[in-house]
Amino acid sequence: MTRATLSSAEQFVKAKRVMPGGVNSSTRVNQALGMPLFASRAEGSRITDIEGRVFVDMCCGHGAALLGHAHPTIDEAMRTAMELGYASVFETPYHEELAQLVCDAVPCADRVRFCSAGSETTLHLIRACRAFTGRNKIIRIEGHFHGYHEMVYIGGHPPQDYGKQNRDQPYIESAGIPTEFAKLIIPIPHNDPAALQAAIDEHGDDTALVILEPINWNWGAIRSDREYLRLARQWTEEAGIVLFFDEIQSVFKTRQLTAQAEYGITPDVTTIGKSLGGGLPLSGFGGKAEIMDLYKPVGDVQHSGTFNAHLVPILAGLAFVKETRKQYFYDTLEELSEHFERGINRIIQSHQLNMIVPVHGPRFTILFGRTTAAERYEDCFCHDPQVMLRFIKGCYDRGVYFHDYGGGPIHHGFSIQHTKEDLDEVLNVMEDTLTEMKSDFA
Amino acid sequence: MTRATLSSAEQFVKAKRVMPGGVNSSTRVNQALGMPLFASRAEGSRITDIEGRVFVDMCCGHGAALLGHAHPTIDEAMRTAMELGYASVFETPYHEELAQLVCDAVPCADRVRFCSAGSETTLHLIRACRAFTGRNKIIRIEGHFHGYHEMVYIGGHPPQDYGKQNRDQPYIESAGIPTEFAKLIIPIPHNDPAALQAAIDEHGDDTALVILEPINWNWGAIRSDREYLRLARQWTEEAGIVLFFDEIQSVFKTRQLTAQAEYGITPDVTTIGKSLGGGLPLSGFGGKAEIMDLYKPVGDVQHSGTFNAHLVPILAGLAFVKETRKQYFYDTLEELSEHFERGINRIIQSHQLNMIVPVHGPRFTILFGRTTAAERYEDCFCHDPQVMLRFIKGCYDRGVYFHDYGGGPIHHGFSIQHTKEDLDEVLNVMEDTLTEMKSDFA
Repeated sequence: MTRATLSSAEQFVKAKRVMPGGVNSSTRVNQALGMPLFASRAEGSRITDIEGRVFVDMCCGHGAALLGHAHPTIDEAMRTAMELGYASVFETPYHEELAQLVCDAVPCADRVRFCSAGSETTLHLIRACRAFTGRNKIIRIEGHFHGYHEMVYIGGHPPQDYGKQNRDQPYIESAGIPTEFAKLIIPIPHNDPAALQAAIDEHGDDTALVILEPINWNWGAIRSDREYLRLARQWTEEAGIVLFFDEIQSVFKTRQLTAQAEYGITPDVTTIGKSLGGGLPLSGFGGKAEIMDLYKPVGDVQHSGTFNAHLVPILAGLAFVKETRKQYFYDTLEELSEHFERGINRIIQSHQLNMIVPVHGPRFTILFGRTTAAERYEDCFCHDPQVMLRFIKGCYDRGVYFHDYGGGPIHHGFSIQHTKEDLDEVLNVMEDTLTEMKSDFA
Repeated sequence: MTRATLSSAEQFVKAKRVMPGGVNSSTRVNQALGMPLFASRAEGSRITDIEGRVFVDMCCGHGAALLGHAHPTIDEAMRTAMELGYASVFETPYHEELAQLVCDAVPCADRVRFCSAGSETTLHLIRACRAFTGRNKIIRIEGHFHGYHEMVYIGGHPPQDYGKQNRDQPYIESAGIPTEFAKLIIPIPHNDPAALQAAIDEHGDDTALVILEPINWNWGAIRSDREYLRLARQWTEEAGIVLFFDEIQSVFKTRQLTAQAEYGITPDVTTIGKSLGGGLPLSGFGGKAEIMDLYKPVGDVQHSGTFNAHLVPILAGLAFVKETRKQYFYDTLEELSEHFERGINRIIQSHQLNMIVPVHGPRFTILFGRTTAAERYEDCFCHDPQVMLRFIKGCYDRGVYFHDYGGGPIHHGFSIQHTKEDLDEVLNVMEDTLTEMKSDFA
């Protein structure tokens, strides 16, 4: 960015004058740095800040930039968009083509719709679930994340000292959300069939949906047990409740394309996220025809918006999905994933570090304070956010960018443009940083 | 689109297989055509469908495409985005530059944030209003539109036969919205100070915000009386209620840039829409520092999202705002606006048509069944949606594209790339169509 002559600290001061916290998204401030990374440009696996420092990017758009940065196929999509004149707000055959590819990729999706933000997908899909069932309550899993809005930003991530009170008075996760809304939320612990059964027994007749992340990317990368999902599928079906998988993070990340395919458990509806637009703002949601066709103008459920499925991200999405269908794509991603997993486990073992790094495709979680897989939300309270922040700062100082999510055990990852050499550089930096601070999390 | 060999009807059949109603937004089906317009490309003032038919576009992205289609400055922004590698999810100096320009343009905005959809702006801003006041109720105006979500898609557009019941049991505008949410909504008639005063008297202690469109673009283009807004400003201030102007449609449409500037009435918070991204998906919201700084990480209100303020629409937004600051921009827009207004009024008068077309900058409403300005919601029930649909179909058959919004008295308009010759073509088509169907709305 030839125009930037300010330091990051100076840029932050200017940004805070005109934007709350100097950012457009609360979590874009990296607490390990005390400010956001102000980017000047990005290419492949690398991000350059406005001071000219180059980092290996291990945020990768929180998982959206699975293609990495400046991927040629996205450039081509942009050129097509320019040729077509953007055609703002109109449907095109490209929309239908992408919808078809996504329906082919996602087992439960007879039909889909596209919008911009991930939060929009759960907002609009929950409405259809409620219309379908004529019920309003939502059974949700502690630790799972489903977007920043009043329908679901309740009871998901209670603080440690709030404890089991969350089951009776679901924790409101933001100021400004009316407490009345908590009455519609039934939080239960993850991977606990008895708790799910009890919730359905008590609230089933009022419950529209059970929503969950099959892989709890937003808290410890905790995997659902297959048997748990099988029971959830069976019991929701018996109780006339919609089973809702939130796959914003998991979709397109592995060769099986979805977690629902990996598990062989098909929900009724699903979100389709974050990498769908090849790094551009595109999300989708889909499900069984009988639920999706409740949307107007077929049914009575509103889902509308000028910017839904804008041609620019639709073309980028089409480019992305077509790229994933090339043979090299998941071959490469699997190789990188295995290389990284071997590398980090070698580091953990050789230095006897008190941590675990669950890896799944190109994304992973760093969980301090335990060496075995977490099974549910409270299992991750061993993770000290301050340790995480020191780790992120240590890597940053050494040229590797991890994003901070409040220090929590959230997800990081690489892209298809990262090389083994990139990952070796990352692993070396992680090893240096972790061994230096080893006593902090012994 | 060289690839399209299908007719629009065939494309619609394919689209409906994979998307509910064949569209990504319920209102994208044009009921006058029985299907959406499937675009192949767009340029300047024109949109070409997949059958190769060219239309003068009088939808213009529902107001988003104020620059028209394929504007050179947006192409330049796209090229910059390509050069910078998109840098998905990072803040840049461009973000701050755009935020500064928007704060300069919008009187109430000490600070702003950017996201994609207009509906996101009201969703996230209402949360801050609630946190600021510690109250939950919303006083809203019948006929005003504030997005498609559970916080406000209630009580805005009740059907005619629902009538005044809306004041006691606010009408739920979509299936799947819990009836409990209606308890937080206080609908009042527009331009009725006594009703506003009564609502504040009765609910003021529980009310977080009064939300309104200063110009009710989404229903008859009804203007607020200045005195009404002055009283709203005074009374909300006295009652500790946030005054919220929804300017998604009105901002940047005239030389004064905002309705709040035109009226000389400054609200506490505002939305900033639809043309901000130059036709790309970008919206914003802003307000007084004491409210905006409630957002995390400064305060306790969550507003976060991976795709907020993506670099591609941010660069397009910067290009758009800079274009509006050139001398020619509003000179041209005013000339076009006056030209269109004179033309349509000449047609109405010379044929003694029972209709009115309120024009404001580059946008206007077509209201059948009355010749004087409407003052409030129920004044527009003279408008027969079936007449509107016949009008739209008549223009479509003659090469001018008006969008359908369920036949209602909603907004249409032109862009900076439309010429007087374009508008003369539109006026001729309107005259032919209206005179042919004159008896339908006599």
